[in-house]
Amino acid sequence: MRRIFFLLTLVLFSSVIKAQDPGKVLSSVFSEALTDRTAYNNLEYLCKNTKGRIDGAPITQKAVEFTRDALIKAGADSVWLQRVPVPHWVRGREKCSMSSSAGREDLAITALGLSVGTPEKGIKAGVVEVHNFDELEALGRKVVEGKIVFFNRPVDNTLINTFAGYGGAVDQRVRGASAAARLGAAAVIVRSVTQFLDNFPHTGVMHYDRDAKKIPAVAVSTMGADLLSKRLKEDQSLSVTLVSTCRNEPDTWSYNVIGEIRGSELPYEFITVGGHLDAWDTGEGAHDDGGGCIQAIEMIRLFKKLGIKPKRTVRAVMFMNEEISSTGGRTYADEAREKGEKEYAALESDRGVMSPRGFSFDTDGDRLDRLKSLAGYFAPFDIRDFEKGGGGSDISPLKSLGALQIGYIPDSQRYFSFHHCANDTFEQVNIRELQMGSAAIASLIYLIDRFDM
Amino acid sequence: MRRIFFLLTLVLFSSVIKAQDPGKVLSSVFSEALTDRTAYNNLEYLCKNTKGRIDGAPITQKAVEFTRDALIKAGADSVWLQRVPVPHWVRGREKCSMSSSAGREDLAITALGLSVGTPEKGIKAGVVEVHNFDELEALGRKVVEGKIVFFNRPVDNTLINTFAGYGGAVDQRVRGASAAARLGAAAVIVRSVTQFLDNFPHTGVMHYDRDAKKIPAVAVSTMGADLLSKRLKEDQSLSVTLVSTCRNEPDTWSYNVIGEIRGSELPYEFITVGGHLDAWDTGEGAHDDGGGCIQAIEMIRLFKKLGIKPKRTVRAVMFMNEEISSTGGRTYADEAREKGEKEYAALESDRGVMSPRGFSFDTDGDRLDRLKSLAGYFAPFDIRDFEKGGGGSDISPLKSLGALQIGYIPDSQRYFSFHHCANDTFEQVNIRELQMGSAAIASLIYLIDRFDM
Repeated sequence: MRRIFFLLTLVLFSSVIKAQDPGKVLSSVFSEALTDRTAYNNLEYLCKNTKGRIDGAPITQKAVEFTRDALIKAGADSVWLQRVPVPHWVRGREKCSMSSSAGREDLAITALGLSVGTPEKGIKAGVVEVHNFDELEALGRKVVEGKIVFFNRPVDNTLINTFAGYGGAVDQRVRGASAAARLGAAAVIVRSVTQFLDNFPHTGVMHYDRDAKKIPAVAVSTMGADLLSKRLKEDQSLSVTLVSTCRNEPDTWSYNVIGEIRGSELPYEFITVGGHLDAWDTGEGAHDDGGGCIQAIEMIRLFKKLGIKPKRTVRAVMFMNEEISSTGGRTYADEAREKGEKEYAALESDRGVMSPRGFSFDTDGDRLDRLKSLAGYFAPFDIRDFEKGGGGSDISPLKSLGALQIGYIPDSQRYFSFHHCANDTFEQVNIRELQMGSAAIASLIYLIDRFDM
Repeated sequence: MRRIFFLLTLVLFSSVIKAQDPGKVLSSVFSEALTDRTAYNNLEYLCKNTKGRIDGAPITQKAVEFTRDALIKAGADSVWLQRVPVPHWVRGREKCSMSSSAGREDLAITALGLSVGTPEKGIKAGVVEVHNFDELEALGRKVVEGKIVFFNRPVDNTLINTFAGYGGAVDQRVRGASAAARLGAAAVIVRSVTQFLDNFPHTGVMHYDRDAKKIPAVAVSTMGADLLSKRLKEDQSLSVTLVSTCRNEPDTWSYNVIGEIRGSELPYEFITVGGHLDAWDTGEGAHDDGGGCIQAIEMIRLFKKLGIKPKRTVRAVMFMNEEISSTGGRTYADEAREKGEKEYAALESDRGVMSPRGFSFDTDGDRLDRLKSLAGYFAPFDIRDFEKGGGGSDISPLKSLGALQIGYIPDSQRYFSFHHCANDTFEQVNIRELQMGSAAIASLIYLIDRFDM
């Protein structure tokens, strides 16, 4: 019955683009994406003119305005801003020097987001190294009290999916400070959560438990972590002077940026495609996640340029505040719920903009099988991974509204060399890799809408 | 019958590694490759200490010696050098300035390999722009004589396989000079053969036809080509002064570098894995093809470290002179023929060291089907493209000796941003992408040998 209705719909609502062979539509999408420089130029602007667009920072407003204008230029039928409450954490002066029998050496550090600061003169203390929470507990208050706890568990490099590697080590960054504080620690230094041996400290958000004192938390580069560990083995009386004068200001306001193409047949069903506009201030937020935002805008441009008229309303959303407390995604879903919107599907691009490998779908059974069958359309573009999996944190609140959750999956091998560090720059983005992704996303959305998947 | 024999072989010659689940062997290969830095450090050394290792250049000997030593350290049973005749082309001073109504502007150029030079003071001439040989012929001698011919056909960016794009534009670089010379041109300037708009001139070999005068040939960056084209439209009386004092010296000698693990059961059957050691002097030859050489050495290290004892003799070969006249590959095959070696299979890694996508096999029917069935072993590593296709230029002379031709296929999207230009540096190589490739190559060779594919 469903199939008959599906076929009937196809016949009744045929239009120029609908009559076309989907394979030809995809070819035109990829060709346009690979020969136009708008998206790449947009990303360059975002990287070079809005660096530091972490939540609450004044520069973030410039990113809001730029992407709003880019959506208008891309041809969106409507473009608007959606007010979002955001935290306002402000980085301070940062310095970390280590004194040991080898002399005085500086370590490359960066404050973790939401961390409290040290006094202006810093904290000077001895250091205890641990690799997990059990080791920390085993040391106990006697050893830990007054010390700086150094969490030094490396990412498991044998995991092929680098996000799995990240997930296996990020607990130190997120929960390390409170665990150490409960044993009386003065501060924590956390090994950067990356597969790579480099001298970039990689930041990221941390959280304080309510029952623990708030102590300063910083990340140290992996090279710095190796050096600190080595010096500790040579000289257990080593001390570190840690300065990080960051602070938390009162919450403030920012915006999600939304642009849509009105659906030609089912305008009150919505497909959302997005990335997040906020980015860690250490880098330019090129891969994380300026690229994802630009790909969403590019989908709008591709549809408009090629005359693709989706049946459903398709939105590009730049979510605010993914990096700290995800209020952008929640605000977007809350408003959709209040308006009684029918959320058909949502796709998130927040894994960098390397070459596309495929998509993950948070569904099962027949629907998953039908979605997997779309892989055939993508074989000419060497995009082959159509698998069960999650969508992303910004779109996850839409799940309860019925939106199919889709994750865009680029090659993950080098992502964490950029993630949350000064290396996440425009220069690290390849125009073809970015645009293969833009085309893949636009193509998938076109197919899902056309075939009512 | 064949299957019974195959099973019998397995039973009779069982050893520790053979008894293992192949999936577990592959896991150990990937884990070792992803947690060891030898290959990456080797590549860094090769890039930073042997830049300029184009055929005939004295520095090439240092690359020969370094990779010989690296093969010994990797544990090869035998390591030796194989004498190879090589051309000796020497780059000179290079400068290209354009005078037009817009004033005097410099263009980023690089001589093409084997090109003759200009006089010391250069060649000053007007410029005619063409996009293909038909356009050139249509202009005729009257227009072309005494002019610099500017070949400006861009790579077709809509082609997903960037090597296909390259192949569609490289004729201008290879054959442009003789075609222009036959019409009396003074020199040729060729648009760099790359998908990317950048200011790196991308070099590469060119050839002179016997019946044409040898005129100087250079590549101009794609940005330079666009500017030259724009200025020509504004001012047809534009002139260019081209200086490129390169020259061809008498042929000289260099070496292929070969290391092998002797086969445990079929030592007189050979599997060859290689890349080429020579590299254009404009960059460091990181992706093209230092990476391919290092992956071959790493295969030896992985086999030795993990106790994988191939039945057949497995060789890692650094071929000399792939970039100019492929004497390394021919010399290697000639010696194999003279010795009556049975060449079982040969794999070439010469498409850069980005993330692996798969392998191409130059065979058909049942053998191709069996090889494709290996894809299942690689799914955990997200390596899925097992397809019919070519091997590579260095191993192609082994085809007539019966060697299955295998090409290593990494993601191709960003390759031509490095190819033959100053951007082909160590910094452009990601350790995980390099090592996913090393592991994939070692794994495939292990499986092909183990299962007599």
